Amino acid sequence: MLEKIRELIHFKKFLKLEFSPSVLYTLKWLILATLIGLLIGSASAFFLIGLKWATDYREDHLYLIALLPLGGLLIGWVYHRFGESVVKGNNQLLDEFYRPLNPIPLRMAPLVLFGTIATHLFGGSAGREGTAVQMGGAIADQFTKWFRLKRHDRKTVITLGVAAGFASVFGTPLAGAIFALEWLIVGRVRYEAILPAFLGAYVADYACEGIWAVHHTPYHIPIIPELSLENVFWIIPAGIGFGLAGRLFAKATHFWAAIFNHQVKYPPLRPFIGGILVALLVYLVGTTKYIGLGVPTIVEAFSSDLPWYDFLAKIGFTSLTLGAGFKGGEVTPLFYTGATLGNMMSGFIPLPMALLAGMGFVGVFSGATNTPLSCTLMGIELFGAESGVYMGLACVVAYLFSGHSGIYGSQVIGSPKH
Amino acid sequence: MLEKIRELIHFKKFLKLEFSPSVLYTLKWLILATLIGLLIGSASAFFLIGLKWATDYREDHLYLIALLPLGGLLIGWVYHRFGESVVKGNNQLLDEFYRPLNPIPLRMAPLVLFGTIATHLFGGSAGREGTAVQMGGAIADQFTKWFRLKRHDRKTVITLGVAAGFASVFGTPLAGAIFALEWLIVGRVRYEAILPAFLGAYVADYACEGIWAVHHTPYHIPIIPELSLENVFWIIPAGIGFGLAGRLFAKATHFWAAIFNHQVKYPPLRPFIGGILVALLVYLVGTTKYIGLGVPTIVEAFSSDLPWYDFLAKIGFTSLTLGAGFKGGEVTPLFYTGATLGNMMSGFIPLPMALLAGMGFVGVFSGATNTPLSCTLMGIELFGAESGVYMGLACVVAYLFSGHSGIYGSQVIGSPKH
Repeated sequence: MLEKIRELIHFKKFLKLEFSPSVLYTLKWLILATLIGLLIGSASAFFLIGLKWATDYREDHLYLIALLPLGGLLIGWVYHRFGESVVKGNNQLLDEFYRPLNPIPLRMAPLVLFGTIATHLFGGSAGREGTAVQMGGAIADQFTKWFRLKRHDRKTVITLGVAAGFASVFGTPLAGAIFALEWLIVGRVRYEAILPAFLGAYVADYACEGIWAVHHTPYHIPIIPELSLENVFWIIPAGIGFGLAGRLFAKATHFWAAIFNHQVKYPPLRPFIGGILVALLVYLVGTTKYIGLGVPTIVEAFSSDLPWYDFLAKIGFTSLTLGAGFKGGEVTPLFYTGATLGNMMSGFIPLPMALLAGMGFVGVFSGATNTPLSCTLMGIELFGAESGVYMGLACVVAYLFSGHSGIYGSQVIGSPKH
Repeated sequence: MLEKIRELIHFKKFLKLEFSPSVLYTLKWLILATLIGLLIGSASAFFLIGLKWATDYREDHLYLIALLPLGGLLIGWVYHRFGESVVKGNNQLLDEFYRPLNPIPLRMAPLVLFGTIATHLFGGSAGREGTAVQMGGAIADQFTKWFRLKRHDRKTVITLGVAAGFASVFGTPLAGAIFALEWLIVGRVRYEAILPAFLGAYVADYACEGIWAVHHTPYHIPIIPELSLENVFWIIPAGIGFGLAGRLFAKATHFWAAIFNHQVKYPPLRPFIGGILVALLVYLVGTTKYIGLGVPTIVEAFSSDLPWYDFLAKIGFTSLTLGAGFKGGEVTPLFYTGATLGNMMSGFIPLPMALLAGMGFVGVFSGATNTPLSCTLMGIELFGAESGVYMGLACVVAYLFSGHSGIYGSQVIGSPKH
């Protein structure tokens, strides 16, 4: 009895075995997260400024789109010549995480930065999270060397880098932290890296927005209906649609990558040919709304009726661009796909257009990347807590219906979806 | 090549092997979640109305506190006579989840409802989430029998019940869903039950608030400072404090339970003696602010300076009440502990009082129950998305510093905290 009480309040043992190690652990990761977060947040700020410049410059000089094949050739050649060790991008981070072999070369960061800016300058359709995540992973992994981190810590440092990159490029620190914890293994949150991921995400977001004053596009959902049984039922078909769109997006990207990799043996030629196709398509459809990030159309999807086929067009343009070897990422095009699909759904699902656009925004992303919790938090960070129940269920249903293979071929399945 | 493309777009196979099973799964759980959610949400509404009546009646008839020992004897005797199969409460749900042996008896629901109302009527210091979770688990598990669910589905149905109970009693559906997924195994989110948990939480929350018009206390944080490096650093010591308070709370509850179980052999006498001690303490300190749910003091903690020792007093009163065998739960007292501790910290941590109270509200809960993600979402649902970064890091740090054993002795560790 007394023994048990003594054990319960055993203060010295607690200090030595629990408290002190936790304090040391916290201090260590606070220092690492501050250093890494400041670096990655600054890299994201620089990247976002460059991206804005490239987008504006292209919109003012539309002839640049005719040069997309040459831009592609340049990107392809640079990666062929200098980037063979980093060409697998996000999947490389995943592979290295599961089966650590080699440190991630620092050159991954400048190469993907250059490739993405060039992709956007010449009018490819792509995103930016790949760039952020790869810059984050590459910068963070250098600290493995510098601080001689152990294998276990290396996994944490990569997680921290991914969280910092994602958080700062979208201005959503909570979503960034959970994305890094959730992304690396489908159906599992890596609790053991939870503190470093949160710290890295916060510091990087602060560095980008607070220090460099680089702001993010605001989105607005004016009316969020009360939760009712009927509304719960309507979220489900919407979520199924978002999940299938995410699946289609992933399949289309893999499809074009397979075509190009098989048919074009010399890698630099792949984005060259892809560039010809994309430039021709832009010429044929007569609009630039499907290339680049597409942020103006995403914003529009929250307030005006858009053509029903916008989401399909964006999937086509992006999968062709990325499958051919251009750089960037999938996430902003996934936002575009989802927001326009939600916009279209407002024609027959009795929920407000802006709400459906927002649900699609995060829902398609959830389906394609298998990260429902992160996407729920992103919805809350972007659209406010009141939308949380709509965002949450849309992301969960989309996650269920997108199948087990998302846009990242190297993702490992930690638990089945049901 | 062609083979690969065909495989990628193999539509029939997709329909048969992926889409149809997902649709059936969704329909099945939609029906179950609607039925179970409506029942549990209604039970929560009934419980909350009863709790309000008991609290108001006690405040108007303070002599009832002198009858606390008799109330304790009554609760103890009823549980001894009729409730031996359900006396382990939340831990029983956990045990049954890990090692399914017997269906959870439906009587768990009325017994814990009666026990909690009686505890509050006579002035015990306790919460309500235990009641909600146990009513939820017991009601949900009846469907295992009625629908002849398999073992795998039974785990999901218990998860759904816990989500529904938690969501409806606090009015926080996202936090309820994630709590159920996170609570059952420390350091793991049960993705395989994610859709049922969300659906159950939503429907139950809607039933309680939408159908029965039972509303929840609103809390308000008027000023949320911009994120800065300095603020990130200040969240950490606050989070450590919340984690240690959560740990102390858990240890104190186990401590009193151990004392009573060893010293008092006849179970009904335990709450009788505990009732004498609590009633005497109330008489000695001359205030009723430490008994019951303590919602008025929680609200006050967001705006006025409170005595520094409030959080310790609440830990003492609650651990004594619950350790002696009164019923209810720990969560609202954990909110109380955290909000008053945050209030006290505002004396030396340069963050707004209301923000620190809110961070403590969810942070101490996170530490004591090992559910950082659920608590982050609860913070967002209660205090708005802008507070998210403060809530998130406070919950994560508190989780790290509370040790591996929380208030639930039967929780299984899924992954280490770092």
